Amino acid sequence: MKLTILGCHSATPRTNTNPTSQILEIKNHMFMIDCGEGTQVALRRNRVKFSRIKHIFISHLHGDHYFGLVGLISTFRLLTREADLHIYAPKGLKEVITLQMKLSDSWTNYRLFFHELSSKNSELIFEDDQVEIHTIPLDHRIYTNGFLFKEKEGERKLDINKANEANINKAYFRKLKQGADVHNEDGVLIDNKKVTSPPKPSKSYAFCSDTAYNPDMVPLIQNVDALYHESTFVEKHKELCKPTKHSSAKEAASIAKMANVKQLILGHYSTRYDDLSVFKTEAQEIFANTELALDGKTFEI
Amino acid sequence: MKLTILGCHSATPRTNTNPTSQILEIKNHMFMIDCGEGTQVALRRNRVKFSRIKHIFISHLHGDHYFGLVGLISTFRLLTREADLHIYAPKGLKEVITLQMKLSDSWTNYRLFFHELSSKNSELIFEDDQVEIHTIPLDHRIYTNGFLFKEKEGERKLDINKANEANINKAYFRKLKQGADVHNEDGVLIDNKKVTSPPKPSKSYAFCSDTAYNPDMVPLIQNVDALYHESTFVEKHKELCKPTKHSSAKEAASIAKMANVKQLILGHYSTRYDDLSVFKTEAQEIFANTELALDGKTFEI
Repeated sequence: MKLTILGCHSATPRTNTNPTSQILEIKNHMFMIDCGEGTQVALRRNRVKFSRIKHIFISHLHGDHYFGLVGLISTFRLLTREADLHIYAPKGLKEVITLQMKLSDSWTNYRLFFHELSSKNSELIFEDDQVEIHTIPLDHRIYTNGFLFKEKEGERKLDINKANEANINKAYFRKLKQGADVHNEDGVLIDNKKVTSPPKPSKSYAFCSDTAYNPDMVPLIQNVDALYHESTFVEKHKELCKPTKHSSAKEAASIAKMANVKQLILGHYSTRYDDLSVFKTEAQEIFANTELALDGKTFEI
Repeated sequence: MKLTILGCHSATPRTNTNPTSQILEIKNHMFMIDCGEGTQVALRRNRVKFSRIKHIFISHLHGDHYFGLVGLISTFRLLTREADLHIYAPKGLKEVITLQMKLSDSWTNYRLFFHELSSKNSELIFEDDQVEIHTIPLDHRIYTNGFLFKEKEGERKLDINKANEANINKAYFRKLKQGADVHNEDGVLIDNKKVTSPPKPSKSYAFCSDTAYNPDMVPLIQNVDALYHESTFVEKHKELCKPTKHSSAKEAASIAKMANVKQLILGHYSTRYDDLSVFKTEAQEIFANTELALDGKTFEI
């Protein structure tokens, strides 16, 4: 799994920072998460192939998380895209996008599917053979979801030498990979674990932005390999967290610790901080394995 | 009059170019013309004070001319703007912007006025003591206006020594500046021209993008000091002009020549051209005083 940070700053514009957008590469998928203004240029800068993006997940309808989407949709048309595009977003986005397309008399030459979200409970919103994606209800000023990306557990690894030694017909190899015990040519039941080893551990990534400190999410993100959690402020400005429904770095770290995640990635920094190291220092007092998201940075998960 | 090019390229995104937006400084006003995606960052890069922008003119509702506007409106709120903001744009923009504000539950803390345009004839859309602004109907795939910015003629310059020599009471000085003949203390009518000289010539700027070759605009832009006219293509790709309703550099130059403008500024280049000098070379065969718009370039008019 590879995470590319296209942008990780909060709304106020600056010449050298981008609002929220990420690309998650997982099992041959290239998922986009959020799409603030300027994301299409950030895609170019990070040399991401536009055509590989087939699914876009929008957390909420504050501008710094989606104002770049309509431009990206228009650009896909200019680039003569043909592949379907699926957008998962809070209810209302479809109306905005279709109104803008109507006013510009510019329709897409590819199929555009809106999957509008309105549930306040976690939902399974995408699933195929290898991946599943669930929403993570967050606590922000408007309806907001995080997203949990999980690889499905793969097949067990078969040791062919051992299977042959155990005199198992190769017709049963598939069943062995799926974890079943099978009878060998002599009619003896062979314990699966004697000829296979566990599958590669399946990875998971949780994206949680924007949100107030919200322990309700902890059961949903338990043990994930990487958690991106917003930290708009540090504790010094804690009084700003409550009215804006954002988190401090310390709060993000507390969530990471409670959920026993393997790695915490911070982001969505307020522009008041010129030196971002204050976020990392504050979080690491609670949760050691903390990294800072930075525009253009990648994480191998 | 000073023109700052924030962006002057057509829609396809690149890392080093911006879609259309300009700032025109004229008689203490700072007018914004068009507002493609990323304009607020271009404003920062060009050190334009956000608070000085009180009037924004949108030519048409293709994304590369207005997708940056909603972000700018949101940023004005974050910056706790209090001054009124007036937006002149084709009908439909108000619906888009208000829908997006409704969905984000983010209203402005300043007054936002939409002046929606739908006339196919040239209209006076702004006027104060010193400036007037008219629409220039253009010929594009959707409803589109250019804009003509004109300084009003100033007062005549009074030569106070000559007025005193002519024995004119200073109570009449205001009338003299306004061009009237007045009686002196001896009851003699004094010819205005004997004691005043003509006002500074008033400047004018015409913005014409996007448009097909459209000689109908010529009477409206006659003799302007500077004409910005789109040139998406050069003649080599003339076959693309008609279906897209864009102009070639040669066509832009022909309009400039017919309208007897003082200077032509080209822009809205298709991304197919890496070397922009082809536009200038082509236009200068018809109209010598041609310059290329470039992101970040300024023109003293």
